[in-house]
Amino acid sequence: MDWTIGVDIGGMSIKAGLVDDNGKIIKECREKTAPNADACIKNLLNQINFLLDSNQLTIKEISGIGVGCPGAVSPDTGIVDFLPNLGWVNVPLVKKIQEVFEVPVKIANDASVAALAEATYGVAKEYNNCLMFTLGTGVGGGMVLDKKLYDGGYGRGGELGHIVLDINGEPCTCGRRGCVETFVSATALIKQTKRAMLSDKDSAMWRYCEGNIEKVSGKTAFECAKNGDKTAQKVVDDYVMYLSESIMSFLNVFRPDAFILGGGISLQGKYLTDKVTEYCERFDYGYKSAPKTKILCASLGNDAGIIGASALIK
Amino acid sequence: MDWTIGVDIGGMSIKAGLVDDNGKIIKECREKTAPNADACIKNLLNQINFLLDSNQLTIKEISGIGVGCPGAVSPDTGIVDFLPNLGWVNVPLVKKIQEVFEVPVKIANDASVAALAEATYGVAKEYNNCLMFTLGTGVGGGMVLDKKLYDGGYGRGGELGHIVLDINGEPCTCGRRGCVETFVSATALIKQTKRAMLSDKDSAMWRYCEGNIEKVSGKTAFECAKNGDKTAQKVVDDYVMYLSESIMSFLNVFRPDAFILGGGISLQGKYLTDKVTEYCERFDYGYKSAPKTKILCASLGNDAGIIGASALIK
Repeated sequence: MDWTIGVDIGGMSIKAGLVDDNGKIIKECREKTAPNADACIKNLLNQINFLLDSNQLTIKEISGIGVGCPGAVSPDTGIVDFLPNLGWVNVPLVKKIQEVFEVPVKIANDASVAALAEATYGVAKEYNNCLMFTLGTGVGGGMVLDKKLYDGGYGRGGELGHIVLDINGEPCTCGRRGCVETFVSATALIKQTKRAMLSDKDSAMWRYCEGNIEKVSGKTAFECAKNGDKTAQKVVDDYVMYLSESIMSFLNVFRPDAFILGGGISLQGKYLTDKVTEYCERFDYGYKSAPKTKILCASLGNDAGIIGASALIK
Repeated sequence: MDWTIGVDIGGMSIKAGLVDDNGKIIKECREKTAPNADACIKNLLNQINFLLDSNQLTIKEISGIGVGCPGAVSPDTGIVDFLPNLGWVNVPLVKKIQEVFEVPVKIANDASVAALAEATYGVAKEYNNCLMFTLGTGVGGGMVLDKKLYDGGYGRGGELGHIVLDINGEPCTCGRRGCVETFVSATALIKQTKRAMLSDKDSAMWRYCEGNIEKVSGKTAFECAKNGDKTAQKVVDDYVMYLSESIMSFLNVFRPDAFILGGGISLQGKYLTDKVTEYCERFDYGYKSAPKTKILCASLGNDAGIIGASALIK
């Protein structure tokens, strides 16, 4: 058996897992994030020791440790450059882990890691070329080309949420205007939903939110659309259009086998992918002469972080 | 010496060249395109024989033949799927060449081939990761990642001109709206120039065109801007903004070492690249933590087709 350890550093907690060579998590543990990088790393090293001890393994039996990080990392140098939510700046994470555990250690951005997980062990494991959007507070992006993670020069590409969809659009957190993220993140969908509710006081979405617009979530429009509310259906139709147009830009550049949707909105599953597929088939000229890209929802859920991090060691 | 033959199929003519292992064209010939694929291929085979004979070489001394095609090709199967300007549909070009010459034969899209030429022997030869726009009637795209041509799944990606810049923009030839091509092709620049001239009858651009708006070219606004015409400067500033925003979307996905501009508009050279570089440095958040992408103009001109095609054989 070939064992690896995958670590998923999140904004709230650090999860670590022992993973077998089928991408199955055998043992998992979780710690709240500590207030600074040194304390986090100390915990992380303890978590790895816990995984080894509780499975009666020594570090020599582990092929390596992979770590997914929520921010900018330099895979070549092993340095975590910047994690906005944790306040890490220029942390030599690979070096610090290897001072304790003498095995290969690799780091990558968390959205890249999620894409690698789905492309290696998840919904897209049959395909060679996959791209992925993580539709959450922002829009993360991952690319797996010829079964290998591709994260751009210096590991600093892969920001698939930051191509422009409307040069005159709303300001994006990145400083530009009208990025894909401003249209298809959960944050954007919530904004679009609220706007539609304010324009239609009779929409069923008000009842769904018990009259409180602050209860709107990424599910509100979808659930009410399924129940026939016209205003909600318009929100969903527009969202599908924005999402499909964003995806099509990438299809024209990469023509991947699969495009994976992750994050909370992807829980809409086939209801969402059927609509996006239908839109892309109608408007994507590339479909006339190349195999159709499958639009798929992620299948590994919260495990993708650990599984994908472990898959960095292959 | 390692010899290859590069063939550049264009809308008007087919050029073939004998290329040495420094990417230098030793001997070149050209034929007008014939009315159908079979006749074109017959000429092409004659051109190859001419190159061999006039250099006293046999086919055994050639490491291979590369062909750049203006349209959709399938590099894996060796089939030219569709060349709109030549009317070729489903032509098994590699097979037809190999029936006569038993050497490796490879095909690729012409914009990809141009990018490979610049990345291997031209302005970007020092860099590992390069993207390229060919700014002509349309906008072609090429990607060279880790020094290797990347043209997407089934060779059908690389349509860098067809990511959306304004989802509400003008119709694009591809069927969508507001693609990069509708903003930064020479065709688009000419349209933008004419619009500005019609709004300012005193612009120096009228004199530059001898009062005839049909004489507007991709040079009109640039040349008059350099001479101080305010309306022309506004056209150039807007064009630079569109081009820079298009490029920045790709920087966020690929973070390449170099972004190359080819096609007629790239003859503006440093005047253009200085402005684009300045815009990207101001607005690209990625620049804060990764090496800056060099914005460069293509250096191989019309030879890029033959040189890049020959570089497919490496």
